[in-house]
Formats: sequence, C-alpha cells, structure tokens
Amino acid sequence: MIPGQGSSRSDGEGEHELRILPAGTTVHARSGDTYLRALQDRSFPIPSTCGGIGKCGQCRIRFVEGVPDPTPADVRHLPPRELEGGWRLACEHLVESPATIEIIPEQGELDQKAVHDTPLSMDSGDPGVRLRTVQVRSASREEQLAHSTRLGEALGGEVRMDPEVLRRLARALSSASQVVSVVSAGERVLDLRETSESPRLCGIAVDVGTTTLAVFLFDLTTGGQLGTAASRNPQRKYGADVISRIAYARQNGPDGVSELQAAVISGLNALIMQLAEGASIPADSIYKATVVGNPTMLHLLLAVDPAGIDVSPYVPVFTHAVECTAEAVGLAINSQAIVETLPAVSAYVGADIVAGIFSTRLGEGNAPRLFLDVGTNGEIVLAVEGRLIACSTAAGPAFEGASIVHGMNALPGAIESVRIGQNDVRCSVIGDLAASGICGTGLLSAVAELRRAGWIDASGRFVPPTSDRPLADRVEGRGKEARFRLTDGDSPIHLHQADVREFQLAKAALRAGIERLLVRAGLSTGELDGVLLGGAFSSSAKEEDLLQTGLLPAVGVRKIRLVGNVAGQGAKQVLLERRSMDVCRSLADRVEYVELSGDRAFSEVYVENIPFPESR
Amino acid sequence: MIPGQGSSRSDGEGEHELRILPAGTTVHARSGDTYLRALQDRSFPIPSTCGGIGKCGQCRIRFVEGVPDPTPADVRHLPPRELEGGWRLACEHLVESPATIEIIPEQGELDQKAVHDTPLSMDSGDPGVRLRTVQVRSASREEQLAHSTRLGEALGGEVRMDPEVLRRLARALSSASQVVSVVSAGERVLDLRETSESPRLCGIAVDVGTTTLAVFLFDLTTGGQLGTAASRNPQRKYGADVISRIAYARQNGPDGVSELQAAVISGLNALIMQLAEGASIPADSIYKATVVGNPTMLHLLLAVDPAGIDVSPYVPVFTHAVECTAEAVGLAINSQAIVETLPAVSAYVGADIVAGIFSTRLGEGNAPRLFLDVGTNGEIVLAVEGRLIACSTAAGPAFEGASIVHGMNALPGAIESVRIGQNDVRCSVIGDLAASGICGTGLLSAVAELRRAGWIDASGRFVPPTSDRPLADRVEGRGKEARFRLTDGDSPIHLHQADVREFQLAKAALRAGIERLLVRAGLSTGELDGVLLGGAFSSSAKEEDLLQTGLLPAVGVRKIRLVGNVAGQGAKQVLLERRSMDVCRSLADRVEYVELSGDRAFSEVYVENIPFPESR
Repeated sequence: MIPGQGSSRSDGEGEHELRILPAGTTVHARSGDTYLRALQDRSFPIPSTCGGIGKCGQCRIRFVEGVPDPTPADVRHLPPRELEGGWRLACEHLVESPATIEIIPEQGELDQKAVHDTPLSMDSGDPGVRLRTVQVRSASREEQLAHSTRLGEALGGEVRMDPEVLRRLARALSSASQVVSVVSAGERVLDLRETSESPRLCGIAVDVGTTTLAVFLFDLTTGGQLGTAASRNPQRKYGADVISRIAYARQNGPDGVSELQAAVISGLNALIMQLAEGASIPADSIYKATVVGNPTMLHLLLAVDPAGIDVSPYVPVFTHAVECTAEAVGLAINSQAIVETLPAVSAYVGADIVAGIFSTRLGEGNAPRLFLDVGTNGEIVLAVEGRLIACSTAAGPAFEGASIVHGMNALPGAIESVRIGQNDVRCSVIGDLAASGICGTGLLSAVAELRRAGWIDASGRFVPPTSDRPLADRVEGRGKEARFRLTDGDSPIHLHQADVREFQLAKAALRAGIERLLVRAGLSTGELDGVLLGGAFSSSAKEEDLLQTGLLPAVGVRKIRLVGNVAGQGAKQVLLERRSMDVCRSLADRVEYVELSGDRAFSEVYVENIPFPESR
Repeated sequence: MIPGQGSSRSDGEGEHELRILPAGTTVHARSGDTYLRALQDRSFPIPSTCGGIGKCGQCRIRFVEGVPDPTPADVRHLPPRELEGGWRLACEHLVESPATIEIIPEQGELDQKAVHDTPLSMDSGDPGVRLRTVQVRSASREEQLAHSTRLGEALGGEVRMDPEVLRRLARALSSASQVVSVVSAGERVLDLRETSESPRLCGIAVDVGTTTLAVFLFDLTTGGQLGTAASRNPQRKYGADVISRIAYARQNGPDGVSELQAAVISGLNALIMQLAEGASIPADSIYKATVVGNPTMLHLLLAVDPAGIDVSPYVPVFTHAVECTAEAVGLAINSQAIVETLPAVSAYVGADIVAGIFSTRLGEGNAPRLFLDVGTNGEIVLAVEGRLIACSTAAGPAFEGASIVHGMNALPGAIESVRIGQNDVRCSVIGDLAASGICGTGLLSAVAELRRAGWIDASGRFVPPTSDRPLADRVEGRGKEARFRLTDGDSPIHLHQADVREFQLAKAALRAGIERLLVRAGLSTGELDGVLLGGAFSSSAKEEDLLQTGLLPAVGVRKIRLVGNVAGQGAKQVLLERRSMDVCRSLADRVEYVELSGDRAFSEVYVENIPFPESR
C-alpha cells in the first residue's frame, strides 16, 4: 500500500484510524491501547469475560490486512484455520498502525437469541403523549394575544412550556397559515413544529439488562413497532454482574457512578441512532421512553449511587417509578421527551420483574403460579389467591455462562444445546461458527444430556468410564479433574466436573427460593398450576432439560411456559398505554418481598437441592 | 517596574492582565481590544451611549500607571484636571500591555438612585418553598424500603425527585442519625442535605431592567432582606433600548438571542455571587427566583426570540407566568431552584407593570387613579371602578437621558437636578463629581427651571436674551442652535434647543396616552384621585417639575405620588408569598390593553400636548 493513499491512515503520533467491518465504520484509536480496549471504549460489542488477559478466548477479531503474528494465547484459543484467516484475540494485540479489522456482528443474533423479541400487535392505546395539528388564530392589532395564549386556546386549555419549547414557538407560528403540529403530554407541550416539519410521534421501550441492552422503537400513533436493536451493555467492561459494577462504583466514588452511567447511555444512544436511521426518522421525534431493568441498572442509568444495594440491609435509593426529561438523563432523543422507569419492589426485585408480572398477568387469577427470571440472580414470584410473594436468590453467574471453564454469553460461537447420541455428540452453536465456548442454555443442555446418558450420577459426579462404553474416549481426567469433551478439533470444548458443580449450586439456590415461597404460602409443588420462566435464558432452554436437571420442581412439562423477554414486553405495553403504569405501580405495591439472606431454613433446603433428581 | 515582578503581567502575545480598581479584580484582555470593549465584555459597568466612537465622553477610566497620551477626543471631553490625573476615555485606547486602571464604581449610587430600594419589612408569608428537618426511620432487613419511600413517609406524602435530587438522597441518608434537611416545593423535593449541612432557605427577587439589573436577596424563612445589588444591564452594549436589542437579535439570528441571554445571565450571576458573598451563604441555598421585567427583557432572559414585539401586530411569544428550573435558564443558584416570571399583558405592558399594579394596589378601590412607568416607553394604567385600562406610548429615550446632546443615564457624573437662581445656576451631580452629562430627571429639572425663569416660552423655544438680563451670558447660539450653559469649566454642559424638543415630544406622547385612556373611561383629568409615578425616573423627580412641564396633567401636587421601583417591590412580594402570584395572574387577565399605534385621535391629542402649559 502506498502511504497516504490507502483507506486507513494515521492521524499523527498518538492515534490511528481503524476501519471496522462489516459495518465499515471508521474510528480513531490511541496508539498503544489493546484492540479490545479500543473497540470496547467505542462501544463495539467485543465479548470478553477474563478482563483482557488472554484467558477466555472470546475477543476474536480478524485482521484484513497486516495480520500480526499470533501470540501463545492466540494459538491456545483459536483453531489453525481461523489463525490462517487472520483471526486473533483483540486483547493480545496493540494498536500500532492504521488497520482494517472485522468483528463478529452480534446484532442479528441478539435480536433472535438474547432479546427474544415478539413484535407486539396491539391496539394503539393512549401513550400519554399526543401529536395534534391545530389551527391557531392569527393575532391582530386589536387583540395582541401572545403566541402561547393563542396556542392554549387552540389546544383547548392551559399549557405549560419550558423555555426550550417557548423558543420553538415563535418559529413554529412564523408561517402565514398559523397551523402547527404540537406534541404534548397532559398540559405540558413537548414540541412545536410548522406542519411541513410535523414529526412522526415515536417512542421507545428500553430494557437495560446487566448483559444486554435492548431498545424497541414504536410509532405511538399507530402502535406499530418500527424496529428492534440490541447490543451488549458497555458496562460489561466494569464487571459481568451487578455486584462487580457496584464494587467498581464504590471504589471510584461519584466518578465511578458517572462513568458507569456514561457507558450505558452511550450504548443506548448508539442503538437509538441505529433504530432512527433504520426507520428513517430523526431521533428527536422520539418523545417517550419507558425503561425497565433491575434496580442496579436503573440506579446507574440515572447516575444514582447503588452502594446500598449490595450491603445489608440492602436498601436502594429509589424503587418508585421515576419520571424525568431525556435531557436530565442524557438520552439522545427529543430533549423534552418523557423518560419513565417502571417501579421496583426491592434491591433485587426490580422493574424488570414488575414488568414481567404485568405482562404475564401473573397477578390475575387465583390458581398458584410461579414466575422465575433466571440470570445471575434468580428472581422468583409466587402468585396465589391475589397475593404476590417474591424473593431473590444469588444463583451465581453459571446460567449466564460465567464461572464455567469454557463459559461465555449467548453470543456467536457459543454452544447453546448438546445432543448426546449412541455414538456421537452433536453441539448446536450460535451463528454456526466453530464453537468457542458454552453459554447458559448450552450448560443446561449438556448437563441434562450427560445425566440422561448416565455420564453424571445423581450426586453430580462424572461416572468413571469403562473402556468398552461408547464415547468413553470423551471422558478425560479423573475425579475433580474429570471433563467431558463436547467438541473435537484444535480447540476442543469440555464440560468440566467443576462446571457441573457450579450448575448444581445455581439450581439449588433457585430451587431453595422456590421451596421457601411455597412454604410461606402453605403450598406444595403439586399444587402449582403453572411455572413461567422468563429472561434471555428461557429463549432456548428446553422444558425437559429444566426438569431433568431439577432446575425446576417436578411439575410436569405441560405446566412449564418459557415466556422470553417479558421485561421488554412489559415496557412496550406501558410505553403504548400510560394507564398500564398505574397497574404496574399497584402491582409493585402488592408484592410481598421475602428476604432470604437471614433465613436459616433456606440454607437447609439449599443443601437438599444440590443433588440431581433421580433419573426419570 | 522590573519585568515579571509587578502585580500585572502579560500572558504571552495575545493577552494582557488588567487590574481593576477600586475592587482589585484581575482580568485578562485581548491585545488590541479597546479598554471599553474589554471592560464591557467582562461586565464592568462602563457607561457609553455613542457605541465607542469618542463622542459621548462617558466611558471615563483612570490609568494608575503608564498613562497613555490623551487623544483629541480625551481633550474634548475631559477637563485638564482629570486628564492630568490619568483619566482617559476607555473607547480611545487599546490594550497593549498589562495595566492597572480605576473605574467609577456605580454600585453604591445605583443602590440609592436607580434601584430606589425600600427594604421590605413584611411578615414572612408562604413562599411556596419549605425547609424542613425530618427524622427518616431506618431501613431494616425485614423491611427494605427504599430511601425515597421512607423519605416520603417522613414528609407525609408523595414526593417527586429529579435524578439530580435522587443522587443526593443516598448521601444525605448515609449518616447513622437518618435526620435530613429537605427543601421542597409542593410534592417536588428540590434539595436534601445532612442536617450538619442544612442550608439557609433563601430566595431572590430579580428586576431585569433595560438599563439596570437589580437583585434582592431574602431569607425565605424569616422574610428578612439580606442584601441588594444592582448593576447596569450588560446587554447595553447591544443597544440602549429594547428596540435596538430586538434589532440586534434579528440581525444575528438565534446566535444573537443566545448572546443577549448570555449577557443578562452573566450580569445577574455576578450580582448573585456578590450578594451570596455579602450574606455569607452559598449561592446554591437560593431556591426560588421571582423575576420581573418588560416583555423584551423576559424573552431575552429565557432566550426566546423577541422578534414579534417590535413589528405590527406586536405579538410576544408569551405573556403568561413562566416557571422553570434555574438550570434551564442558567442562573447560578441551586440548579433545582424554581425560577418564575410574573405575567405580562402585552408586548409593551409587561410583568414590571403588572408587578407595579400589584404592589401599588392600583386594582383595589373605585376612585379613578393613574399609574405611569416612565422610561423609553411610557406605560400607563388607568384604574377606575374595578377596571384596569392600559396603554404604552413610545415616549422615546429622552427620559432616560438618551437622544439628548449631553444626555446620559442616571449614573455618577450625571446632573440630576438644576436650580436657576437670580444670578446663578446650581447643578446637583450624582456622586458629587464634575458633571459629565444630564440624566432624565436632570433634563426634567432643567426644562422646568428654564420655563419658570422665562428662558423657554410655552412653544418650547429659547427666548432670545437681552444683554441686561442676569444669566444672559449663559444663552449661546440662536434659533435651532440656541443652548443654555448649565455648568462652566473646561467641558461645560449645555441644554440645547433640540433637547427641549426631545423632551416636549416625549411628554406629549405620555400625555396623549393619558388623555386617550381618560376618554376611553369617560373621565376628565379633574376626576382623577391620584397619579402614581413609578420607575427609576421617579426616584428623584420633583412633583412641581412634573406639573410645570406638563409631563403630568394638572392634577395638583398633592395627588401625585412618586412610588419608585414598584416592579422590584412586586417581585419581592411574590417571592415571599406565593399566593401573590395568583393575584398577579388575575390582575394581568383583568387589564384591558389599548393599542395606540393605529389610533388617529391619539395623533391629534399628541400634537396638542407638545407646547408647555402656560406659566402658573
């Protein structure tokens, strides 16, 4: 390449231009940063769970030109075919010159796998913001009524306007026609335009997950969904779970909180920009944002210190539904837009769970039903005869693919299900790539299959292989070192004895939580009329595996419903119908929260639930 | 001076350090700027009405060291005594090196003259913001209620908090005592502190005048006034009156409006800082600001384009009482503080007039009374039998000392009254300095005295002097060039024939407005029970002069009341008692506005009122 004539260039000593495929985006990165740091800082969703020390092998990128020599970590984690093709670990190489690299786009996958979006087809309700085109009568010398007064007349009542909106009023009424498009929420006028610039009235439902951000764009006039976008939560670089992010905030004081807020806001704004472009609307025609998330995520979204959440007595700063302007939060939508969060119950039973209760209609009817949202924390709600009783258990991160030797999130390259046949093992990998790890449902599936096939006993131990048994060669090591080889090739993926233990501890916590709620309500498992499993985990789990591993109590397959991203669904419903917010408020008030951390009986039930159920 | 060891220094090629006495402030000025531009840009109140072209002679500053050679304009305008002392015109000299200069402090003068402040001694009412110290109960593991929920309990009801306030909540409740100081306005919590940091609950009344800014600081708990500060409106460099500022905004588009807003906000913030320091409070313990001003001033304060105000049909963007946060305007008080403007009636009958009607209780009682606010525009309100009828007349800037050959604002150096004796003329000068011009009341006084002494006839012409008449040597020139020498010395101040004309036209406009209102109400002058004259002009005008010149109709001295800065007074009352705002709203609604610009009878009455009354 002739210097200066290529498509990428250096900007002097300190920075280099990086061209990122397949999107073709150009960014500038500091010389000497790792590619991982450079890309994550610019909100590219590069997975990494080891913190950039060459251990997890997830941060794969491909150098299109000027491929650097592989490092030992590259060789350890990447198959020769990928190494030859220019794939390297982003944490192992420093930005030293302009480069063109390819990253694994996760967008399409996330839409289907992690977000598990069911487009709404609902009647358009009353979103609480309105777009009207009104004729304002002209002022005359005889009656010099102010613009705002005549606008109030045209709108039929009192109007309230921030200075920002007053500034637009003169311009909007400057045309001879005196016809204007007005966006209002109750008495408050949010925007004013000449009719030729009349906006499309849009809104977004926002699901701020610890792992994944999802934004759903709607036309608030028709109720039609205009698009969905998702990405990894950029806060991930500060820690995989809420506890590590709270710790980061604690160690870094107010700056830490601001930094975490800036990260999530930049992630959301990137999605908003993407959605607006996709739907050919300006982002400032988004006038309402309804947000769900767990309490830590919502505290950080508003830059409110979450420090009370992870220490006894576990007190959040707020649980109520907060309403403010987009400006006050920094969301790149109309500055006057209404941003509202759904209410939460407690430090660990958040707006996401309230949204789930709402959208699954769990609070209605008398028959006992359970709702579970499984992630790092397992939140459990038992509905019975009008009561809603909830608890949260620290299941640990196994269900999200962390704390597992070859664990990873549900992203391209992750094994999401395993089928053990008579003589073979087949793994289904997200994105049909070479497997680079195991995600939560892959773990569930592998454990269930190994248990079915008799390779794991009820206590959770690998059964030592006898040489004549088919697949015996796949069991490597002994005792605590035992592991089962799921995939072959240069970088085989194993399920380790320790992984099975992690799974057992996680499911025992969840089961103990369920038991405690049932005892509280005086119910037995058999009396349950339904078990609803929500969260990203639920999108590709199999009901049989949930029962096989004892993750759910033995209720029978037909009683299990995998409900997907009900938090996002609830946010959408509240976005489109403002009265739904009142329903959510009263649901949040109704929930009786049970704290398990001081509950001695919980520990007993927990230990009882560590073994797997006897084979069925 | 040894370079680098003095108190002033250069900061490289582009800037020089200026030390400003008597305050001792240090500022940095661009090399090559005039001292006038440099000082005005930094909000020093240097008077100038000619736009910096060496013509008005008002922008006097004293060079303490390195006095530059005087220019011809310096010599023309400054007496030798002042030139020797280092006084120069700021517009005539460029910043070329570090310097120490002295300016004429106007602060003390403004307090007494322009602001005309009567400290309030009123009962502390309900300002609408409250400071409470409440005990919040502790959270427990059994009942993990959020901080905001427990705070709501302690405050006895629903609370609304912006993210900004939520951020403070965690900190405020971090102490073991769980006792917090809460500032609230209705449901809205504005601030939260640990009791050890409990703020003093303060508020400001703000009078945004075209010429002068005045801020009054109050303790909202006791109703006690903590201080007053005033300065020239820094917008003056964009034009002396509202029309020229609207023109500036029009020529410079949205940037022009922003620039004018920035100017007034910086002026107010300087006053706020000064008041806060004087009262030893942090500026963020100011939680409420009640603002009056004419419509153009309030539009520019909120950065709302005032373009509709100076073209027919004279329509402002808003006349209603606007409420917003300090943050939305940029006032350097608590970011969550409530900023409220009083309501206006029309493009030229503003919140200042409504405040005047309110504080003079003009709307009460049945006897016919007139209220006049005299400035560039003369606003007139006639109260009769429950009706309030108002108009605005373009009196021209004579009453503010502009459009007068030696005119200036009521600032140090201005002649504010004239006494013509048998054989002498005595001028009273603000600040007891050498006279450098004539202000509005000086003009009134000079015209009245010259009329009394027979030097001006009823038509307004100077009477040609006969040589034997005492003071005949003071009349110079003939016909349109005639002028009367008020002061002697190197730079004598004259009252010119043209000045008398300007005065006549201004008072004729005012009188014609009064006549039209009286006709509208079917009243004669004799039926008037009182005439209230407000505005800065009223603070040193003499009742006899008002009648002598025919500025007011012949109602008799006892019926005239000089009421001073009633706009500021009204703002104070609303600041201290929020229900007063409702009274002002209903007053603004009650006012019937009469537009005079298309009124043919007005023109006739105007011409009739140009002559002076026959001598009394």
